[in-house]
Amino acid sequence: MMLSEIDQRVQNLMWDIQKRTLQRMKESYDVDLKTSYKDLVTTVDKENEQYLNQQLRKIDPSAQIISEEGYGDRVKSLNGHVFIVDPIDGTMNFVMQHRNFAIMVALYVDGKPTYGYIMDVMNGELYHGGNGTGVFVNDRQINAPANNNLHDSLMVVNAGLTIDGGHNVREVERQARGLRMYGSAGIEMIYVVTGRIGGYLSYLKPWDLAAGMVLAKELGLVVKGIDEQSVDVLSSNLVLVATKQVTDDVLELVN
Amino acid sequence: MMLSEIDQRVQNLMWDIQKRTLQRMKESYDVDLKTSYKDLVTTVDKENEQYLNQQLRKIDPSAQIISEEGYGDRVKSLNGHVFIVDPIDGTMNFVMQHRNFAIMVALYVDGKPTYGYIMDVMNGELYHGGNGTGVFVNDRQINAPANNNLHDSLMVVNAGLTIDGGHNVREVERQARGLRMYGSAGIEMIYVVTGRIGGYLSYLKPWDLAAGMVLAKELGLVVKGIDEQSVDVLSSNLVLVATKQVTDDVLELVN
Repeated sequence: MMLSEIDQRVQNLMWDIQKRTLQRMKESYDVDLKTSYKDLVTTVDKENEQYLNQQLRKIDPSAQIISEEGYGDRVKSLNGHVFIVDPIDGTMNFVMQHRNFAIMVALYVDGKPTYGYIMDVMNGELYHGGNGTGVFVNDRQINAPANNNLHDSLMVVNAGLTIDGGHNVREVERQARGLRMYGSAGIEMIYVVTGRIGGYLSYLKPWDLAAGMVLAKELGLVVKGIDEQSVDVLSSNLVLVATKQVTDDVLELVN
Repeated sequence: MMLSEIDQRVQNLMWDIQKRTLQRMKESYDVDLKTSYKDLVTTVDKENEQYLNQQLRKIDPSAQIISEEGYGDRVKSLNGHVFIVDPIDGTMNFVMQHRNFAIMVALYVDGKPTYGYIMDVMNGELYHGGNGTGVFVNDRQINAPANNNLHDSLMVVNAGLTIDGGHNVREVERQARGLRMYGSAGIEMIYVVTGRIGGYLSYLKPWDLAAGMVLAKELGLVVKGIDEQSVDVLSSNLVLVATKQVTDDVLELVN
């Protein structure tokens, strides 16, 4: 199957899962603690992942799948087609706020970020694109954000990192025009690709990062590891996603 | 005029200003720095304030008006009817994000928080109520938030306070279920009255605080000064707006 045909079918799947999630929220579901009281998982996370993985296997049977809740494959390399799936990103917001969460899927081909999909479920907005075709909100193409510097940008920085103050992040926060925290990597990626924030600095797991990295790179934004110089989408990284100028300014400050 | 009639006319005014603001955003406007590069004011702030004050004087000619951009009265006491007006709350978001800002009006009668109005312009939601009638989103009455403790709550804490770490706020942030920052007191007040966050701790000026304080008290939430014990709506305060249990937990930690 052509990549563009896979893209169209995954877009349809994202709308399908959006409707299923809205419907599912009207019914009761279980909420469990995962690693701590700050890290939740619900029945909806698990059901969404099972459904997405099943449908992605129908769309592209030879692809491998990396996914958050454990229904994917044990992927050791990015050879061939690899889907990376986050069935509910921002589960805490999903449970506590019934908004500000996302569903994300990405397709990497031989390690190359190829297509990204971020569904803002409550606003009914699918941010998608890649592979040289641009980035779209539903059917409307969006422009690359202005290349603002740190002084003229709002920043999102991971809460734990802010509280601990590692990597000199407080100086980054002081110099930015303002600090924001939304509690969902998907929502925060949407904010950086639309220019509503100039930079996003956080510890990201593969499913947090994969879709946003496709969209950010497609728009000429920088995606850079702070601990290491190159970002490995198979492991957890401290990642900056930002305009070129914000990247330069932040890299001068962080350590 | 009866208070309930004033209430109805101010509600109509809030919808009027919402439509004017949406229209105005389609045209060009000036953005100026106020106290620093982190503090903006636009033509829309000023036009909104002039319009709101003019209309409020028609509704209630004997009332005094406290407002952010300087078109109000020099109010020294809260005797009689006092309107408190924020023509654009979250001006940085208004300019950079075109969302996540609010327009707020409050009516205090002889110092008593009486009616509050918070318009989420982009979502077309007017949060309003007070005077024993309850709190409403548009026409739908909302329930008081569950009395969760800090451990089970998301918190919003002022960015500057978080970066500086004063009052032991980082320990509050560590114990909370998560930390959020939206950059608009109006939006953050909406989040606390709907239970999407359990507590909001920030330095607030009269126009940041007045409307949210009415709605929060109407729902049985606590509004408490951290520096002083009672909140003075005529001056700037470090204020906690929270559930009773979050208040107890936070007061044990802050200093």
